[in-house]
Amino acid sequence: MKVHSDIEIAQQANLKRIEEIASSIGLKEEEWEPYGKYKAKISLDVLDRLKDKPDGKVVLVTSLNPTPAGEGKSTVTVGLGQALNKIGKKAVVALREPSLGPTMGLKGGASGGGYSQVMPMEDINLHFTGDIHAITTANNALSAFIDNHIFQGNACEIDTRRIVWKRVVDLNDRALRQVIVGLGGVKQGVPREDGFNITVASEIMAIFCLATSMQDLKSRLAKIVVGYKSNGFPITVKDLGVEGALTLLLKEAIKPNLVQTLENTPAIIHGGPFANIAHGCNSVLATKVASKLGDFVVTEAGFGADLGAEKFLNIKARLGEIKPEAVVIVATIRALKMHGGLSKSELKSENGQALREGMDNLAKHVETIEAFGLAYVVAINRFITDTDKEIEVVKKWCKDRGIEVAVANVWEEGGEGGVELGHTLLNVINNKKSEYRPLYSLEDSIESKITTIAKRVYGAEKVDFTPNARAQLEEFHANGWSNLPVCMAKTQYSLSDDPKLLGRPTGFTITVKELCPSIGAGFIVALTGDILTMPGLPAEPAALQMDVSEDGDAIGLF
Amino acid sequence: MKVHSDIEIAQQANLKRIEEIASSIGLKEEEWEPYGKYKAKISLDVLDRLKDKPDGKVVLVTSLNPTPAGEGKSTVTVGLGQALNKIGKKAVVALREPSLGPTMGLKGGASGGGYSQVMPMEDINLHFTGDIHAITTANNALSAFIDNHIFQGNACEIDTRRIVWKRVVDLNDRALRQVIVGLGGVKQGVPREDGFNITVASEIMAIFCLATSMQDLKSRLAKIVVGYKSNGFPITVKDLGVEGALTLLLKEAIKPNLVQTLENTPAIIHGGPFANIAHGCNSVLATKVASKLGDFVVTEAGFGADLGAEKFLNIKARLGEIKPEAVVIVATIRALKMHGGLSKSELKSENGQALREGMDNLAKHVETIEAFGLAYVVAINRFITDTDKEIEVVKKWCKDRGIEVAVANVWEEGGEGGVELGHTLLNVINNKKSEYRPLYSLEDSIESKITTIAKRVYGAEKVDFTPNARAQLEEFHANGWSNLPVCMAKTQYSLSDDPKLLGRPTGFTITVKELCPSIGAGFIVALTGDILTMPGLPAEPAALQMDVSEDGDAIGLF
Repeated sequence: MKVHSDIEIAQQANLKRIEEIASSIGLKEEEWEPYGKYKAKISLDVLDRLKDKPDGKVVLVTSLNPTPAGEGKSTVTVGLGQALNKIGKKAVVALREPSLGPTMGLKGGASGGGYSQVMPMEDINLHFTGDIHAITTANNALSAFIDNHIFQGNACEIDTRRIVWKRVVDLNDRALRQVIVGLGGVKQGVPREDGFNITVASEIMAIFCLATSMQDLKSRLAKIVVGYKSNGFPITVKDLGVEGALTLLLKEAIKPNLVQTLENTPAIIHGGPFANIAHGCNSVLATKVASKLGDFVVTEAGFGADLGAEKFLNIKARLGEIKPEAVVIVATIRALKMHGGLSKSELKSENGQALREGMDNLAKHVETIEAFGLAYVVAINRFITDTDKEIEVVKKWCKDRGIEVAVANVWEEGGEGGVELGHTLLNVINNKKSEYRPLYSLEDSIESKITTIAKRVYGAEKVDFTPNARAQLEEFHANGWSNLPVCMAKTQYSLSDDPKLLGRPTGFTITVKELCPSIGAGFIVALTGDILTMPGLPAEPAALQMDVSEDGDAIGLF
Repeated sequence: MKVHSDIEIAQQANLKRIEEIASSIGLKEEEWEPYGKYKAKISLDVLDRLKDKPDGKVVLVTSLNPTPAGEGKSTVTVGLGQALNKIGKKAVVALREPSLGPTMGLKGGASGGGYSQVMPMEDINLHFTGDIHAITTANNALSAFIDNHIFQGNACEIDTRRIVWKRVVDLNDRALRQVIVGLGGVKQGVPREDGFNITVASEIMAIFCLATSMQDLKSRLAKIVVGYKSNGFPITVKDLGVEGALTLLLKEAIKPNLVQTLENTPAIIHGGPFANIAHGCNSVLATKVASKLGDFVVTEAGFGADLGAEKFLNIKARLGEIKPEAVVIVATIRALKMHGGLSKSELKSENGQALREGMDNLAKHVETIEAFGLAYVVAINRFITDTDKEIEVVKKWCKDRGIEVAVANVWEEGGEGGVELGHTLLNVINNKKSEYRPLYSLEDSIESKITTIAKRVYGAEKVDFTPNARAQLEEFHANGWSNLPVCMAKTQYSLSDDPKLLGRPTGFTITVKELCPSIGAGFIVALTGDILTMPGLPAEPAALQMDVSEDGDAIGLF
């Protein structure tokens, strides 16, 4: 069998013009604007027009702890959306926008794979409709306003040693992690330490994804804490008076983007925060618009259920008033074998023993979803290298425990390969009890919220706070920030904060090293382990293979 | 009389859908893609389809040395385009894309003014179709590739003290002029001095604007010199192997953008390099496409004729094989009075004496255009504060010298206010001899080219090269870079390199302090005086007034 690359499949796609897709989900002409022939921005007015229409059912796609290559969650999300349409349901897919950093660095693209991709994949993986660039610009404009404020006399008395707002680029660029700016003498500003994050780790990206309207966007931007006075008093964007300008820079970007899958299933792609440092879900507005336009919304949250899904359920669903109906937990044979102790080079060979031992990792994520009160299906995302025997092992494991399970062969077969999963999911939705409840109350203390997540989601025995983090707990309480949800920053590879501890570790301690206030986004980030907010490029970046053909087509986006 | 602000006028505009504009200039459906309802990108294929069609006549709009507020060159360009259509000619306007830096900092917008604006001005002044963001990304990706190359072993032996490639943001941000990157130890890279330019000063912007095709874009990107080995040997993008990736990042941006004026005249807005450090003209591709789609192209070059027009004529027209037909030299009463010795606060009161003395500045620019062999018209861009008597002084001065002159009242009246100018221009085109010739030959030495420009365009007595610049002349000659045109970096306020020397100074010396190789763009930059490639924000940035209304409209873009 000849295996086609994602970009080969993409370039042979039979796409419909975006006006056809828009009208297929009932959008009126004045409710969308084209961006090229196959992309559109959807006006937020549609939420007002359809406010009395019942919401479609939201299905969240999550996974076990992934391998570095990822477990194909986006692919399953797209494939499931296609499958539901195939079996007569009106489904809309909602996904995150890819960051250029990983695209140019490691992977060359992030828009599903095989016959379950969102289109046009070249555009989506490059600049798309410019949303991430608008966020980069707003973020860096704020930095420029801060430094200019200090240069022009520093009326707000910002302590230049306590500025927490960083600049961003949407690239992998380790040389920018720690920098000194403002060098060159009195005309160039005031020297100070600074650093750059990747744009998708910016608080503005998180705000963008949690805002429920333009006005909500503006009021969240106003609340961003940029730094402190020397007495510790926080300085916000509102103090600088630039929340209007930042909102203006985001006024088009905040409109969700409409595209389609390879099988012409409508897809809304909007916002893309990191799932380790931020909350890892597409925008609330995208999910809300999708749930007004489709009877089903299939959406994903980044990394495993310990990160993306936990945040979807404790942060996004709560702040955005989105009630998820059911969860799909993606597992792959390779990831399960890795959790069962195999090294990367051993993953391609059949190994029932390792596979069975790796199921422990999946079991923990299943328990987590149950703790949120939700019905779920385990989806085995089939790879070409998987054997039937291995698939059977996972199926049997699930059936022995009364867990619904289905194989998704969507990479190879598109929607057709997701029909089994689609039917299983519909069956679960119709017959299983599912009542979403967050894991903690907002009134709990920050410490208690973190402990709840660590114990109930990660399976930790206890949580340690460094003296620094303890001092911050008190400080944040004094600043009135205790009632916010917590956004955990943790490695995606392990349930613990040690990336090497695979499977289902027990008896471990989670160490909280630092807390960061994302007051605009509306959460407190708790940092555990070493979480990079600016990735580096590898020795051979994907960019080295990239080019444009004589016909103007992209080369080297996988 | 109630004076409406630009944004008030803009928000009441009666725009046509972009498909109407596209079809009015004969674009086929497959030759353009919509970006919203009122913007489109034009496929470069149109140049191939129309390669045998005779080019439209290119009219270049330039001015005398401007005041800090600008003399309304864009406004006259738009107004003249509208006027030509009004009198039955098929004219297309070609302009630069505004940079967000000045928009957020000083001026709040740059898309013409009054009743001579390009639309939709909100979009054009904010992110437009994302071209500048794509250039920012390509520029910074190259920086990341350079630092990663060094981090991964530095196979090219780049001397970290001799890296000339800088990072960019499209903002006014003085704190980024001089920075140190790569701090934080062995995992973060190699510490080195770096700096940020504003994106519109990036060599990639200049390349973007001089490229004649996608393949030409790629070959120019490959030639960028990023730094040197310790023995002085230049390292290029080709050495790093990333010209394909940079081209890929620009593959959509390189397509010219189609919009319209307030009177539905087609306008192509594409590329926007600084006119002091770079060549200050919209892209060659925009001008070429416009000249295939219209019988007349009205286009502008930044600042006075000593900067933008000189570079249009010596660099852009030559590299892009664009033959300009005639020139419009914009003068304003206020700028003339300033050149006649008045201070900024005195410009609003009538003063015939100062006005007459200021004419000397205009006279020099007239001589410059004559030196290029071109026919021209002086356009008096009328301001509300101008008196009839003042207008008469300028008209008489012109008539006494046989210079064609017309008043343009396009800010207040739109195309109607440009009809006199339009007729005068058509008359000049039909009756005056005009034969474009560059001022120097590419075979001249760099020193000789600079001297030609300084003496014949600026009126300098002589040119001094600092010892540093002299050493560079030899080095560049040895590198084989002598046959490139020169891009002068000079203050826009004076014919000399001293911004305070107004009017028509004589006997002065131009001091060349440094030369910079823009080998990809295809020119050598000669730095005179202190030219900022990264502006700073003022004490009260325009951003403080910006906001979004409840209806989602922009507030505070003037």
